[in-house]
Amino acid sequence: MNSFIEIPGGVTAPQSFTAGSIFAGIKPTNKSKPDMAFLFSTVPAVAAGTFTTNTVKAAPVRVSQANIRATETRAIVANSGNANACTGVVGIDHAKRMTKAMAKALGIKERQVLVCSTGRIGVPLPIEKMEGAIAQAPAALARDGSLRAAQAIMTSDTHTKEIAVEIQLNGKPVRIGGIAKGAGMIDPNMATMLCFITTDAAISKKLLQQAISDAVECSFNRITIDGDMSTNDTVLILANGAAGNAPLRNGEPEFDRFQSALNKVCCSLSRMIVEDGEGVSKFVTVQIRGAKSRQDARKAAEAIANSTLTKCCWFGGDPNWGRVMDAIGYSTAKVREETVDIYYDGLIAVQNGTAAATPISKLREVVANQRFTITVDLHIGKAEYTVFTTDLTTAYVEFNMGE
Amino acid sequence: MNSFIEIPGGVTAPQSFTAGSIFAGIKPTNKSKPDMAFLFSTVPAVAAGTFTTNTVKAAPVRVSQANIRATETRAIVANSGNANACTGVVGIDHAKRMTKAMAKALGIKERQVLVCSTGRIGVPLPIEKMEGAIAQAPAALARDGSLRAAQAIMTSDTHTKEIAVEIQLNGKPVRIGGIAKGAGMIDPNMATMLCFITTDAAISKKLLQQAISDAVECSFNRITIDGDMSTNDTVLILANGAAGNAPLRNGEPEFDRFQSALNKVCCSLSRMIVEDGEGVSKFVTVQIRGAKSRQDARKAAEAIANSTLTKCCWFGGDPNWGRVMDAIGYSTAKVREETVDIYYDGLIAVQNGTAAATPISKLREVVANQRFTITVDLHIGKAEYTVFTTDLTTAYVEFNMGE
Repeated sequence: MNSFIEIPGGVTAPQSFTAGSIFAGIKPTNKSKPDMAFLFSTVPAVAAGTFTTNTVKAAPVRVSQANIRATETRAIVANSGNANACTGVVGIDHAKRMTKAMAKALGIKERQVLVCSTGRIGVPLPIEKMEGAIAQAPAALARDGSLRAAQAIMTSDTHTKEIAVEIQLNGKPVRIGGIAKGAGMIDPNMATMLCFITTDAAISKKLLQQAISDAVECSFNRITIDGDMSTNDTVLILANGAAGNAPLRNGEPEFDRFQSALNKVCCSLSRMIVEDGEGVSKFVTVQIRGAKSRQDARKAAEAIANSTLTKCCWFGGDPNWGRVMDAIGYSTAKVREETVDIYYDGLIAVQNGTAAATPISKLREVVANQRFTITVDLHIGKAEYTVFTTDLTTAYVEFNMGE
Repeated sequence: MNSFIEIPGGVTAPQSFTAGSIFAGIKPTNKSKPDMAFLFSTVPAVAAGTFTTNTVKAAPVRVSQANIRATETRAIVANSGNANACTGVVGIDHAKRMTKAMAKALGIKERQVLVCSTGRIGVPLPIEKMEGAIAQAPAALARDGSLRAAQAIMTSDTHTKEIAVEIQLNGKPVRIGGIAKGAGMIDPNMATMLCFITTDAAISKKLLQQAISDAVECSFNRITIDGDMSTNDTVLILANGAAGNAPLRNGEPEFDRFQSALNKVCCSLSRMIVEDGEGVSKFVTVQIRGAKSRQDARKAAEAIANSTLTKCCWFGGDPNWGRVMDAIGYSTAKVREETVDIYYDGLIAVQNGTAAATPISKLREVVANQRFTITVDLHIGKAEYTVFTTDLTTAYVEFNMGE
């Protein structure tokens, strides 16, 4: 029943959304790509979102968290090149001036605008320049502007991240589209992750929040360590009802289909983020089974996925299951060493806590692949959890050494 | 009053201790250095120690945890090249056979022997070879054997780690000596950290345990993330009373002097481990002040010290205090962004949560040094915590890519 088709168009695939970009000159060194993105619903819309749980929150996060409480939301204004984080009261003022300029340009209310920034921390925005750029938003916005908006929010990404799907809800075509920018590495604590989603479904603000929270939990949060996030991470969704479907209601099959499609959009974008991580050479799925609790399964999965040593040996094509055992052991998940089984793409590497019969050469073949799955069965309970991660490469270190 | 002098001799500086090493051929590929170490008190001694908190514990850790409960302890037998971890019941049997062979060779009881292993996980020991080597321990043990024992426990270390100090307790000279082997990186969750300490002080087993626990807390645990440790990490101390001092008693000034000297030995060895980390190019002290609780200060310090991104930019000589702010923010410590001050070797980089006036060029000069200190004052309470860490280098990744 999860029947949806992928369609082109990104965030402007849904009806009555426009998007665009402009070059404001935020980082004078990079004139090759636009640095501001605009997204607009030409009809009234409702918004929902999830924000970084970092105590140190960028100014735009604080302003968007306030504005998203408005009954109606119409637009998003975003910039790359500067995170507007750790900028104090000046930063808050700048983020508000961005929403004010956008509202003025589009003839909407200030509270109907959400704002995002990504880039270097601790430097005030060149706000006058940006206000001038935002004034030109109406001319920049277009029904085919998704890709340009996706380009404008890129930082260290090597390519744009865009997707759209269409589903039928009681005979009406409904669309969901999204764009995202990746993080320095796959973990959103590493660098800012931004994701903007649009849909022309008719859905209440409250149900939209529930849907996006659920979708984020099974996608973006699976590429997150312990809920750690950067100062700016933000996922926003706008729904404008332009598809003309009967408003979605919780518990009905139409809503379930909408949720599945939204999950698909979020999972696709989160996977694109992982695969485009800085210097990444492998995409690794870490699956825990048989844990006492979901929390335990999550702890074990994240310990493996975040161990510097496991990530280094994946880079080198070395299975080294001892490092996986070690990570499980210090994860604080309940573990009985003598019941642990570990598989590499289904080949058993560890049985009852010690080396299994599979020849090491076979395990090496698995880890030589660009994608593989490590499955750990703790044989203690029934809980499961899966995270998506990468290797740690010399290219990553070089990229993050500084300017 | 902490007057102690450094003396040569390592673990054989204290009276009535002998040490030595032998080549048993545990890893056939490395014939250039001994792979088994022996340590012996020629007179009765008491032992105390701290062991890895990892749920996945190597067999020698389990056996030593049992044997250390004996009233009297006389010897330590250790090997490099193989961790005897994740080796099941076979591994336990092998660790016991090591203690049995050592007891037989020295004419002592099996329970009076402690055992340690370090090296690759998941491969059974070549136990017959090792039993043959242990039988030759009496000939290998010597009053000047400390350095040879220190060499035998090395794995990826580039040099031996050895220290001894002498203090006067009521007019009697008392000595404390130690040897250690480093971890892959400075964090004992990364690879095995072993440390053997001897003293000729007269001290009860109970007070010795208190003293070593306190010393480890302010030294080896300061280079540990969240108490995470490898499957094999072990710190052992033997005290044989050969100095002839009046038995130390808790609360007396002599005991305080002994504790200070023991702390000095542990701090020196832990610092040597950090400085000899694989591929390390910088030694960084991370100091938190003004935290609400010691636990909060620890969380913040460890978040900074373990952030992949902060470590990469230190390697590149980039101060990048935004990454420090970000790490504090996700550390789960209580933080008020607007009261955070950050210093680099005393130069203020962040004041009240935003960029301070110090020119970035001055901060760059600090981070260009091989050693520097980052101090964060949270201005919320009075608690403090300090950890010692390193940068993350391309050499580290290359070293840990696998064979």
